[in-house]
Amino acid sequence: MQGKYRALWLNDDGLLEVIDQTKLPFEYKTKVLKTTQEVATAIQDMTVRGAGVIGSVAAFGIYIASMEVDDDYEKLKEKALLIRESRPTAVNLMWAVDKMLELLKDSTDLVNDSKLYAIKLNNDEALESQKIAEYGCNIIERILVEKNKKKINILTHCNAGWLAVIDEGTALAPIYEALRRGIDVHVWVDETRPRNQGASLTAWELTQSGVNHTIIADNTGGHLMQSGEVDMVIVGADRVSANGDVANKIGTYLKALAADDNDVPFYVAIPASTFDFDIRDGVKEIPIELRSEDEVKYMRGVDSDGVVREVLITPKDSPAINYGFDVTPARLITGLITNKGVCEADFDKIQEKFRG
Amino acid sequence: MQGKYRALWLNDDGLLEVIDQTKLPFEYKTKVLKTTQEVATAIQDMTVRGAGVIGSVAAFGIYIASMEVDDDYEKLKEKALLIRESRPTAVNLMWAVDKMLELLKDSTDLVNDSKLYAIKLNNDEALESQKIAEYGCNIIERILVEKNKKKINILTHCNAGWLAVIDEGTALAPIYEALRRGIDVHVWVDETRPRNQGASLTAWELTQSGVNHTIIADNTGGHLMQSGEVDMVIVGADRVSANGDVANKIGTYLKALAADDNDVPFYVAIPASTFDFDIRDGVKEIPIELRSEDEVKYMRGVDSDGVVREVLITPKDSPAINYGFDVTPARLITGLITNKGVCEADFDKIQEKFRG
Repeated sequence: MQGKYRALWLNDDGLLEVIDQTKLPFEYKTKVLKTTQEVATAIQDMTVRGAGVIGSVAAFGIYIASMEVDDDYEKLKEKALLIRESRPTAVNLMWAVDKMLELLKDSTDLVNDSKLYAIKLNNDEALESQKIAEYGCNIIERILVEKNKKKINILTHCNAGWLAVIDEGTALAPIYEALRRGIDVHVWVDETRPRNQGASLTAWELTQSGVNHTIIADNTGGHLMQSGEVDMVIVGADRVSANGDVANKIGTYLKALAADDNDVPFYVAIPASTFDFDIRDGVKEIPIELRSEDEVKYMRGVDSDGVVREVLITPKDSPAINYGFDVTPARLITGLITNKGVCEADFDKIQEKFRG
Repeated sequence: MQGKYRALWLNDDGLLEVIDQTKLPFEYKTKVLKTTQEVATAIQDMTVRGAGVIGSVAAFGIYIASMEVDDDYEKLKEKALLIRESRPTAVNLMWAVDKMLELLKDSTDLVNDSKLYAIKLNNDEALESQKIAEYGCNIIERILVEKNKKKINILTHCNAGWLAVIDEGTALAPIYEALRRGIDVHVWVDETRPRNQGASLTAWELTQSGVNHTIIADNTGGHLMQSGEVDMVIVGADRVSANGDVANKIGTYLKALAADDNDVPFYVAIPASTFDFDIRDGVKEIPIELRSEDEVKYMRGVDSDGVVREVLITPKDSPAINYGFDVTPARLITGLITNKGVCEADFDKIQEKFRG
């Protein structure tokens, strides 16, 4: 069960094995990626997804590519391009490929060295996740003390757990740490339309990890906060601007507004690499990905015979629009939980802590 | 095509015919309701839904019941009970049945009189809808002038059109009036999870009525408002407390917060009968209906062969919770568009206008 709590791993034959996330939550299937092309395809068709996991797979992808090039670094660079371009908007993917190539520049044993570097890169990320887990869980403990409560209710949006980032994710990492510390934790899982990463991936991941949770329609969080049923919100992020504005899955901003209106602490958990210091005003400057309308109009699920089907849920001719992300202004964010500690979502504080 | 722009009507044979809303948007089918039992069943199984439409069907249901009782008023009262109890939480349903019975108390010709009263009651509601249309559209015109724009983008949540309230609905009535006045209007349709009344009913209704619209995931409205893509929000309501708090479909509160954060006018369109003067603090006192978790976990749609199917979209064992409504505090509401004019969502103003 090596794969149970990880999105990818080297299996007993030393091969890269990943959970096929396109099949979740209906089927648990893994795939062994044996060639550079298979790695690129797995990233492209979203067999693997999640900012961190894509980077992790890409790093091992360079190891796989190295086995196809007879210690020829130029050939490796060519192969690497196939992986680097498999999802052009994923910052982590490019970073991981470039980092690996840089490290291997003077190597005389590409196969061995790339394996070691990929493992190291993954271990470094796992360590970041562990740091986020600890800092985040300290906040959970503080809230329980402040409220004099025994049980914490945490709301999350989308999937930022171990299916997204090695080793335990970002937003969900503090929750797994809470479980280890014996805290009674319950998670409200936003289903996260239109791609349903919450209802499919987060709910599945929490089930596997034995965390109490309840799936809710994205519309529900406001009412729950009004009713005192949410003690804190933790989400991940795709990009954080220099002033602390947070780009994350569409709908995050609405939850931040509700948290603010009901004095619920709203935290964003990220590795420090998520900052984009070139962007000074996230709300105005971060470009928002426009995706296919079909993700809104069609829904995938399993029918009563166990067959996975896609069904149309709108009038055929009604148009739909599908923005993938929104930007939550820094003023709505209680704090950024990073591998380097917790930081206010504020330009000066961020500069001081991460560029000082 | 008598049914095209109405949810119910008396057909050429003088019989009550309704659109089967459980089949929308996949199939347009009508049903003729010939007996008291058929009327009660149609309300119960949601063949007809929407506060106003349920009341309208119930009024005609009393007419249908009158044909089964040989001018015996006591028997009619018994029959009426079957309709009155078909959906116990629908305030309008009880109101319509009681009103009809009251009017018929001294009748010597139940069949003729009940038909006339049912028609009158429906015409009265249609007139209310027309008044809401006019007052609401005046606001649309004012916003266009203020912004010096030629086209208005209106966001709505759930379904409060002619599938919900005779004759043109509440929230959508001003939009139909705008179309008549030659205004270029475009509607952002919240899909409205978990029951998808927006993606199925509102999108279908607007298609039938030739109104430009785009379906969005419920998560999207905040980003659209940040980007200046929403000029106003209009929603309906199930109940409005004496202080102007608004109970409406779950998720309404989140859109009101986003509207407030982005200075987008947020209006609630209601017939004056929607006020519940017994409730002084809506957020604290209005009870919220808890519905089946299956509405969150399963989704209905049509597959590539045209077969309507229900699919499971979550892990089978993950629990879900399904609150039907939330309450938007009066402070977030720009105004209440009623059949008696536009009113601030404020205790004193409401008292003055509606109880003065």
